[in-house]
Amino acid sequence: MSYGMIATWRMACDGITKGTTDLANGGSAQTAIVAAIKMVEDYPFYKSVGYGGLPNEEGLVELDAAFMNGDNFDIGAVAGSRSVKNPIAVAEKLSHERFNSFLVGDGVAKYAIKEGFEIQNMLTERAKKTWENRLAEMRNSNLSPYDGHDTVGMVALDQNGSMACGTSSSGLFMKKEGRIGDSPLSGSGFYVDSEIGGATATGLGEDLMKGCLSYETVRLMGTGLQPQEAVNQAMQDFAKQLERRKGKCGAFSLVAMNNKGEWGVATNVEFSFAVATDQLAPTIYLAYPSEDGSYPKIEVASQEWLDAYQARITAPIQ
Amino acid sequence: MSYGMIATWRMACDGITKGTTDLANGGSAQTAIVAAIKMVEDYPFYKSVGYGGLPNEEGLVELDAAFMNGDNFDIGAVAGSRSVKNPIAVAEKLSHERFNSFLVGDGVAKYAIKEGFEIQNMLTERAKKTWENRLAEMRNSNLSPYDGHDTVGMVALDQNGSMACGTSSSGLFMKKEGRIGDSPLSGSGFYVDSEIGGATATGLGEDLMKGCLSYETVRLMGTGLQPQEAVNQAMQDFAKQLERRKGKCGAFSLVAMNNKGEWGVATNVEFSFAVATDQLAPTIYLAYPSEDGSYPKIEVASQEWLDAYQARITAPIQ
Repeated sequence: MSYGMIATWRMACDGITKGTTDLANGGSAQTAIVAAIKMVEDYPFYKSVGYGGLPNEEGLVELDAAFMNGDNFDIGAVAGSRSVKNPIAVAEKLSHERFNSFLVGDGVAKYAIKEGFEIQNMLTERAKKTWENRLAEMRNSNLSPYDGHDTVGMVALDQNGSMACGTSSSGLFMKKEGRIGDSPLSGSGFYVDSEIGGATATGLGEDLMKGCLSYETVRLMGTGLQPQEAVNQAMQDFAKQLERRKGKCGAFSLVAMNNKGEWGVATNVEFSFAVATDQLAPTIYLAYPSEDGSYPKIEVASQEWLDAYQARITAPIQ
Repeated sequence: MSYGMIATWRMACDGITKGTTDLANGGSAQTAIVAAIKMVEDYPFYKSVGYGGLPNEEGLVELDAAFMNGDNFDIGAVAGSRSVKNPIAVAEKLSHERFNSFLVGDGVAKYAIKEGFEIQNMLTERAKKTWENRLAEMRNSNLSPYDGHDTVGMVALDQNGSMACGTSSSGLFMKKEGRIGDSPLSGSGFYVDSEIGGATATGLGEDLMKGCLSYETVRLMGTGLQPQEAVNQAMQDFAKQLERRKGKCGAFSLVAMNNKGEWGVATNVEFSFAVATDQLAPTIYLAYPSEDGSYPKIEVASQEWLDAYQARITAPIQ
């Protein structure tokens, strides 16, 4: 049987490499999602997810995550989590609760502590320095504080035909205390139905939640569209609506996979993503938006691009 | 031009009576939604919304609310708000923010205070006593703590053809600290597009967010379905899926109105709702689910029913 994972951003690649190894050995999509996203959360140089994520305007790291089981639609989510080491693991645990499955603020740590999850200070020295530098820049210029909202989102299909998805994000850098984006919101940041497929989004959460684009992508796949058609149509149709009705549209990037392991991507900005299936070794791609709303141009990331990326995220911060 | 409002639960009726009076005088849908929901929030005997709402398991009232503008899809939302007098007003204000438009926990009060909104203790003596009684009951029996999650949700159409919607809720009585439901979640608790119509939901938020039913109802109206067809199809299709895939389905009730002022309702439990349009004086209806998934039976609430309701919500609590 087919299996596979697709995920937003280059940072997801190690996670889906591990995840699809598990899937090849008969592991479940649910387990693969949690294991893969934990790897991204734990790596301190990814500044938009988990440990090492950039703080809000007060200097506090506040994290959002969600998990969805495509077999029975169970959802767990956390938002504004300040001290849980792996928000995705708590979200997965919450998905088994019939009530109280989406927790925010202090309630997240209370639940996680009672359930035995690891607690830690999520602020790294590096993230703190980046925050201090941005504060200084803001004092000296008219720079917008907002920048960087690279949610990791993943969809997985296992050999039993089960699907799952998950998201994890530190949200907008310099966000207001308590701000949450689309990542923990069903239908906006993620959606999955094992009988159809799954989708997940990254970009400006405030705009993504206006269109319920993950739900719409899955729904379109359910009408028979290929993932590439579905995700492109969902994104382009809504981006056009938003341009016409509001005059502007934030960054939108989505990935999708159906229950055959076929996949697609749509974006209105340059965007990296990662895919691995039984047919395809783990691969990092770059997608470039088309001018005319047709499918994005997709190419495999070059070694040069990967080296420059790694140098950039690990460069010393003054 | 047509105008109108539809809203969940009997408690909404005074609000939409005021709201549609404003609409008749040329007021906007956006203003009508905020004015109408504020009335529900302010009335202390409604135990599931605003002041007088029932507390979480710690005895703290935590409120969720959202506002959506159907002209440009702007959304503002708050969740886990503990001290803002009118969560719907803060949500509306947030809908004008390009960033940070969905706030949770302490961030809500921080924003609201800076913006000049009124702050108050939202716990009434009556709600406190109800909470204490439930704690005692739980000690003495195996009673489930959860009960009562009657979100007020409203959709409005004004004479210019603009639409808006809003929700406000204290969520599940005895919820865990930080629990949020579908009410502040776009696509699940609410959705509106002035070129089509709007929908809003009440019931078990944990299950409602699995189906994105408000978005789906609006989408179906956009394909040409009447509101009654759209809302029934969205709810019945997903309720069947959930029964089949998960084995059970929580309480779902939805109301919808299109941009001609036509409306519909779907529910799998006995459910009261209120409607007022240029064609219809403010009316409280009761809807009863059909056995076979067809349209619910709808009747105007009798004076006897209304009297019993008022007596019940104002009865002394021992």
